[in-house]
Amino acid sequence: MNGFFITFEGTDGSGKTSVLNAIEAKLKTAKVDYLRTREPGGNRISEQIRNVILDERSTEMDARTEALLYAAARRQHLVETVLPALEAGKVVLCDRFVDSSLAYQGAGRGIGVAEVKQMNQFATAGLEPDLTIYLALEPRLGLERIKQNRQDEVNRLDKEALSFYETVYRAYQKLATENERIVTIDASQKLADVIAEVELVLSSKIPVRN
Amino acid sequence: MNGFFITFEGTDGSGKTSVLNAIEAKLKTAKVDYLRTREPGGNRISEQIRNVILDERSTEMDARTEALLYAAARRQHLVETVLPALEAGKVVLCDRFVDSSLAYQGAGRGIGVAEVKQMNQFATAGLEPDLTIYLALEPRLGLERIKQNRQDEVNRLDKEALSFYETVYRAYQKLATENERIVTIDASQKLADVIAEVELVLSSKIPVRN
Repeated sequence: MNGFFITFEGTDGSGKTSVLNAIEAKLKTAKVDYLRTREPGGNRISEQIRNVILDERSTEMDARTEALLYAAARRQHLVETVLPALEAGKVVLCDRFVDSSLAYQGAGRGIGVAEVKQMNQFATAGLEPDLTIYLALEPRLGLERIKQNRQDEVNRLDKEALSFYETVYRAYQKLATENERIVTIDASQKLADVIAEVELVLSSKIPVRN
Repeated sequence: MNGFFITFEGTDGSGKTSVLNAIEAKLKTAKVDYLRTREPGGNRISEQIRNVILDERSTEMDARTEALLYAAARRQHLVETVLPALEAGKVVLCDRFVDSSLAYQGAGRGIGVAEVKQMNQFATAGLEPDLTIYLALEPRLGLERIKQNRQDEVNRLDKEALSFYETVYRAYQKLATENERIVTIDASQKLADVIAEVELVLSSKIPVRN
């Protein structure tokens, strides 16, 4: 595999989209061959799976069923989109990956991080990101940001108690201390400072080829 | 859990449906409180998942994606149908379960039996059948039976080479030697003899309650 696989993680409101926009612009200017993606990534099968997960009638969906469906969509996105790009030598920027399932479903929904991790290894066949940028922000601050900027998301988020996001946040913090590939960025800084820090990490990590 | 969970396994044409019909009639006559089921088992979410799996346009579906989707449908069927029946003390007869995924996807599709097994343990949260009736029949004989009795299925089966079914068969044989819960029945006998043998096993295994 010649490419370089970078995932972006963090709780809601941590600024992933803004940071990804800035990094993408930077790579474009530098004429780096990159792919920006996120699950389900537009492939037909993963979109169908996503429709099953997001079906509002499915209030009876078990947490493990949901985790398996996310892993199935992840697998197909990996096979159809991520792996071909890595094989073609591209830098792949992926908005969320396995760590999100560990934090949200393993910890947040209470299935257990180790169990969700093992199950996801089946989905990824062991592939890990080369680098993970984790935007660390206390959920209280993240939710405040969302309330200011994205009124339409407030209803959805209000349904999940702050305590759920606290659990997700603690799981992310733990993953970051346990995995060397994860670089933690203080996302409570000004956006420009967050972006500068992420750029610094990327410039030191992305292998330069001649 | 007060119930008793029995799964029925075997390659295509091994006579599972005929045997299940006979066992069901027997339990009904004996006024045993039972449930006969098969995945996806009629629940809405599993049926939606099944539609994704069986979508004929999905020729690009990866084998691991398919295995994860089967496991997701299995989980939901377990939570909505099997577990409540077992908790209510019923004898549950289930046409195919995890062993089918091990044989067909793990061995047949070449993912690996151990990997598919571990992933399915996430789906079942470790629940195993109390008893598995395995109808052992060489695929050559099974396919001959199908050609005689179910002309409509011949086309589908012809698409998968006999060698695929040989691989699935060998996997079943190996599982049967490795797992004490699996009772192997020689399904090349006359149907009446197969049924008599299964009934004998069941009468010795199903716990009698007063």
